[in-house]
Amino acid sequence: MALILASASPRRQELLRAAGIAITVQPTNIPEVPLDGEAANIFAERLAREKAWAIFKQRPTDFVLGADTVVVVDKEILGKPRNPADAERMLRLLSGRKHEVITAVCVMGPKPNPPAGAKTDAALGDTRCETTIVTMTALNDDEIRAYIATGEPMDKAGAYAIQGMASRWIPRIEGDYSNVVGLPIALVYRMLKEAGGI
Amino acid sequence: MALILASASPRRQELLRAAGIAITVQPTNIPEVPLDGEAANIFAERLAREKAWAIFKQRPTDFVLGADTVVVVDKEILGKPRNPADAERMLRLLSGRKHEVITAVCVMGPKPNPPAGAKTDAALGDTRCETTIVTMTALNDDEIRAYIATGEPMDKAGAYAIQGMASRWIPRIEGDYSNVVGLPIALVYRMLKEAGGI
Repeated sequence: MALILASASPRRQELLRAAGIAITVQPTNIPEVPLDGEAANIFAERLAREKAWAIFKQRPTDFVLGADTVVVVDKEILGKPRNPADAERMLRLLSGRKHEVITAVCVMGPKPNPPAGAKTDAALGDTRCETTIVTMTALNDDEIRAYIATGEPMDKAGAYAIQGMASRWIPRIEGDYSNVVGLPIALVYRMLKEAGGI
Repeated sequence: MALILASASPRRQELLRAAGIAITVQPTNIPEVPLDGEAANIFAERLAREKAWAIFKQRPTDFVLGADTVVVVDKEILGKPRNPADAERMLRLLSGRKHEVITAVCVMGPKPNPPAGAKTDAALGDTRCETTIVTMTALNDDEIRAYIATGEPMDKAGAYAIQGMASRWIPRIEGDYSNVVGLPIALVYRMLKEAGGI
């Protein structure tokens, strides 16, 4: 039995490794587009499930972890920026205020202790969301331009990396830190223990 | 003009590097022992000042950053554990509840724009404290023993590393994350900007 991370994110791999949770990686290629009017947490949960299922359906005796992170401000869902202008727009939206980071996590795996002779589906699917509130200081035009020029914003939801240069602009969070990086480790650890995956 | 970190902590160096703040390192050897009845924040501020001063007195034209991190629970100051039994005692104290992490930071440097002909001391000394509230889940005996066996607790204030294996037991913080690792980056960035050090 293996624990498979259905994500190409090097940051999620690094968080799990640092926490001492051994994984193998098998990325998926799920399109990350919200449906019309889809709420942020519902959207993130749907993607986390779709990613986990894409792998689990090929490997139903293993445990699979899917995850999706979104940044929410003024009810707008910010994913990864499409280009530098989009990154600039996102950073202006986030500057000088609080926003939410939501990561949905889905654990799929074989059901623990199925009743003898049970004919029900042996798959366990558990999807949960973690929300962290992040406070960002006010950024001026020079700071935004210099930050985008580093390239750091381009592959990050909300166009910033709390673990990178943006740490200088984030004096406060309320909630799980690793959730903002991309995977709520304490929640994942609890879900995996409950599912029998570790 | 250089910015000198008066600390041997590889974690402080890594936090500054990740934030894009260039430093050189010059460790000090200040004894870290609270005075009788010394409050945690006063103790941390005294050490941050003593560390900064130990370097700044040799290099009065540079900027020097001193810091000290303590963990506080039930008004007891937890520094680095003396041995595995001390680490176990600390982890039992922290298990299943909230505690505070306080890092004091001291910036010393040449005073910006001294009045012409001023005879006052040209040193600027600015010391501030950042507090983060950390929630730790309940740890059982096996978890505490296995954690100590990894060696991770031994050189950390409070006997845990939020950025390491202990991330699985920390579902929530309120405040600055990097402060818990050992240096409140957003505060340091603001202090250095105000002092003219970056």
